[in-house]
Amino acid sequence: MLADTAYGKSGIRLVQVTRQGDRHVLRDLSVAVRFEGDYDESYVAGDNSDVLPTDTMKNTVYAHAAHAPLDEPESFGLGLAEHFLDRNPKLQRVTIDVSEHLWARIDVDGQEHGHAFVRERSDDRTAQVRVDRREAQVRAGIAGLVILKSAQSAFSNYVHDEFTTLPETRDRILATSMTATWRYDAGAPYGAAWQAVRRTLLRSFAGHDSESVQHTLHAMGRAVLDEVPDVADIHIVMPNRHHLPVDLTRFGLENRNEIFVATETPFGLIQATVRRS
Amino acid sequence: MLADTAYGKSGIRLVQVTRQGDRHVLRDLSVAVRFEGDYDESYVAGDNSDVLPTDTMKNTVYAHAAHAPLDEPESFGLGLAEHFLDRNPKLQRVTIDVSEHLWARIDVDGQEHGHAFVRERSDDRTAQVRVDRREAQVRAGIAGLVILKSAQSAFSNYVHDEFTTLPETRDRILATSMTATWRYDAGAPYGAAWQAVRRTLLRSFAGHDSESVQHTLHAMGRAVLDEVPDVADIHIVMPNRHHLPVDLTRFGLENRNEIFVATETPFGLIQATVRRS
Amino acid sequence: MLADTAYGKSGIRLVQVTRQGDRHVLRDLSVAVRFEGDYDESYVAGDNSDVLPTDTMKNTVYAHAAHAPLDEPESFGLGLAEHFLDRNPKLQRVTIDVSEHLWARIDVDGQEHGHAFVRERSDDRTAQVRVDRREAQVRAGIAGLVILKSAQSAFSNYVHDEFTTLPETRDRILATSMTATWRYDAGAPYGAAWQAVRRTLLRSFAGHDSESVQHTLHAMGRAVLDEVPDVADIHIVMPNRHHLPVDLTRFGLENRNEIFVATETPFGLIQATVRRS
Amino acid sequence: MLADTAYGKSGIRLVQVTRQGDRHVLRDLSVAVRFEGDYDESYVAGDNSDVLPTDTMKNTVYAHAAHAPLDEPESFGLGLAEHFLDRNPKLQRVTIDVSEHLWARIDVDGQEHGHAFVRERSDDRTAQVRVDRREAQVRAGIAGLVILKSAQSAFSNYVHDEFTTLPETRDRILATSMTATWRYDAGAPYGAAWQAVRRTLLRSFAGHDSESVQHTLHAMGRAVLDEVPDVADIHIVMPNRHHLPVDLTRFGLENRNEIFVATETPFGLIQATVRRS
Repeated sequence: MLADTAYGKSGIRLVQVTRQGDRHVLRDLSVAVRFEGDYDESYVAGDNSDVLPTDTMKNTVYAHAAHAPLDEPESFGLGLAEHFLDRNPKLQRVTIDVSEHLWARIDVDGQEHGHAFVRERSDDRTAQVRVDRREAQVRAGIAGLVILKSAQSAFSNYVHDEFTTLPETRDRILATSMTATWRYDAGAPYGAAWQAVRRTLLRSFAGHDSESVQHTLHAMGRAVLDEVPDVADIHIVMPNRHHLPVDLTRFGLENRNEIFVATETPFGLIQATVRRS
Repeated sequence: MLADTAYGKSGIRLVQVTRQGDRHVLRDLSVAVRFEGDYDESYVAGDNSDVLPTDTMKNTVYAHAAHAPLDEPESFGLGLAEHFLDRNPKLQRVTIDVSEHLWARIDVDGQEHGHAFVRERSDDRTAQVRVDRREAQVRAGIAGLVILKSAQSAFSNYVHDEFTTLPETRDRILATSMTATWRYDAGAPYGAAWQAVRRTLLRSFAGHDSESVQHTLHAMGRAVLDEVPDVADIHIVMPNRHHLPVDLTRFGLENRNEIFVATETPFGLIQATVRRS
Repeated sequence: MLADTAYGKSGIRLVQVTRQGDRHVLRDLSVAVRFEGDYDESYVAGDNSDVLPTDTMKNTVYAHAAHAPLDEPESFGLGLAEHFLDRNPKLQRVTIDVSEHLWARIDVDGQEHGHAFVRERSDDRTAQVRVDRREAQVRAGIAGLVILKSAQSAFSNYVHDEFTTLPETRDRILATSMTATWRYDAGAPYGAAWQAVRRTLLRSFAGHDSESVQHTLHAMGRAVLDEVPDVADIHIVMPNRHHLPVDLTRFGLENRNEIFVATETPFGLIQATVRRS
Repeated sequence: MLADTAYGKSGIRLVQVTRQGDRHVLRDLSVAVRFEGDYDESYVAGDNSDVLPTDTMKNTVYAHAAHAPLDEPESFGLGLAEHFLDRNPKLQRVTIDVSEHLWARIDVDGQEHGHAFVRERSDDRTAQVRVDRREAQVRAGIAGLVILKSAQSAFSNYVHDEFTTLPETRDRILATSMTATWRYDAGAPYGAAWQAVRRTLLRSFAGHDSESVQHTLHAMGRAVLDEVPDVADIHIVMPNRHHLPVDLTRFGLENRNEIFVATETPFGLIQATVRRS
């Protein structure tokens, strides 16, 4: 018996340049396409007669981009999904994942250059569109937003047992590379809403008096719901990029909470969804 | 409203050496622990009084390993899960993920050395244990098994449309870095069953007359069910590491299906679960 | 016979927080230490009596940072080098490599936050200090500056032979992740000079009418020498991150130089040093 | 003034299948080509009239492979170098780097399969060929050989100062991912010599009573010179993949040198060349 079948193409890299005179607009995307449907014969019998090759999926992404300047990743994904559903009768659900790699215009003597760009972001803008024969679901997101605060962060009053060695602290570094996805109500202005969510995530992270990663994660999610009415729910994942104070007493020195070692493994991993009740 | 909360520790690296005279047994694991439970107060109010720190989870992994030589990743995970459930009343479900990095003994003049090792595998042995207050689920797996066949692989007779450029072929290279997880019936001998699954995956991959990645994936899953009775279902994921024939006609040369470029992106991604009916 | 011996510690992660009231200054460094000297006995005879352990090198980096707020990576490296040469009579030359990971302050309602930060740069600031018993050499640098221009870039009039398939073009995308190192004259103001070099690299890249990566690389190096008098020479390495126009004619569409695939491999790799004559 | 100019193509992935009936021979290479020569005009004036595009270098690699089954990476590199020098009058020196990714035949019921393969090695075989108008230099190598020994390894009797915290030990884990390159005397049988060097590196690592990474590195280099007469010198680089014993006394447990944490950063880095005197 066969279940959970899916196939598709990942890592489709698409860059589109739209020229408005000397000013170019650059969209830089990684796209993934995933088909779920009545494809058991291809698995069981090796019968490909209903199979759209993943190479053709890739070509379709490029052809689709050629029809009109890319606007929002969400709209682009929806258009692609509709195309695939129209053409492939055995297809039941298609998922399009888009990551947009963000470029800033190079600043030349205080002016933004028209067609020269620099990567100034650690984070990508993401979108996921899942469409079946009845409905379309759209989630927007942000991936790899690397943030750190060196005050207003504590971790104390937790469970202690015989394996506890972590010291309690009222003043620690909190750092993460956050990833979040959220769902919009119908009609949300994708671009403006995304900027509002990012701004709110940064502001609420900066201002929060944190008792833990969990505590700050919830505050950030809640702030997004409070300040961006188009967002229906938000799911946030935060690895804890631990910064450990170095024990300088071994060298006859004092560490006034100033010298830290940044570690990669092991790492805490915290997540939750916050939604309107 | 809060949902889908989870927290834990990832990337816990544990190496255990067990000495049997001059012959050492080496177990090299990466472990992740994940808690789900009634922890909303830590998110909403910053109240950590029920929170076991992820640092303590890590310490517990090491302490647990100290009590007895590691045997199977599955058993080690089950023991850890039981420990955490016993101690943490708010914990409802705990998931332990283990990846075992496999070492071979160095061969010295035809003899296996007792305490010197070399990494000779691309693949890891994995196990996932999920335990709640009522039941335990165990899945075993293999990650990153890099395999290639240069014959008995075709891809043809697929859907053609105006975006099709892929040529049909009855003789291509098929390569992948497969990942699979499977569920055992109760009482399966973990170590022996894992070896049998790996052996069966390799043999069925080698021997299959492939019409597509889907076709071979199913054949491999089915072979495991046929030959390893302890396996109840198997989920397989196969990225298609495309090897494209180089067009040498541009240089006045013929490519008799001998010269290929190995590509990383974009890549096909195929998956399915095969289970006993 | 033994030659080219060297040993040291790499990947030392150091984060320093300096508090000026509510405003914190964050320095985030990766440091590597490398010793060259009369250490043959440790290799040949296993005699460690002159060997400073690499673990102690690491500790020394943290202790050294505790003595004073980090200012410039170059000065920090010079201080460390002096320390090691003073203490280790067999040490002939010490190299300190520093990469500074740059953080921006989070903007909250138009104001820079005092102690909350976001990674907004693809590039690191680097410094390399090599000191022996007679002299000190200092090189500054930038690593991973990801830049792209969608106009003023051509590649044509090159050698053609029977293996040429690349079409000539007067309008292509030029993209790279540049790395450069440069030497200052004595007395250069490290921080201000670094900012001036980065600004000049960006401006000259943006403004150049490029006939090739080589051509633009030279123009950028020359601009740095022209505009930053403290720089004596500059070595630049530029991988060519090819953006290839997609052939849409196969789908009955025209590509007006708007749709590109961004590729990672294979990649061109171009380098040169530009120095004052 | 311009110096140290070089340009070329990296990341050229070439897979060749040679069919001997049902038994296929697979060669899987990554190739890099690097030109040094009289190319200043391309940098300074944007004059490409002497520039062979890096895209053509890539095509030439594939065309060259089509002429004959690949034998040894060294010979393949030498042939390519000769081709480029013959055709490009401004070229003064060409460097060809080859990494061969090694595949094992899948074992089916005790028999090696003819055309199905599995990656069973962490290490690559490498070769570097540098040829100018007067001479050719060939270096062979091995990259990423991951090895570990859990006995016969100590580190003690080293320099102590006020920053020393590392405990001395007569029994530790020694692990590394070694990379080495070596030079052959003229006429060496490349394939057989490479196998002999790899075997000798493994055997000498396994058998050595190690006082340090330096000590074992030298012993391994010396063993290669002793046992493989074709090798004139060998350069070895060994990162120290530290395995630190976990302090279990904090939990009331004893660590009888059995429980370790494997770390990635920071890491020691040791290197030397051993040559015949």
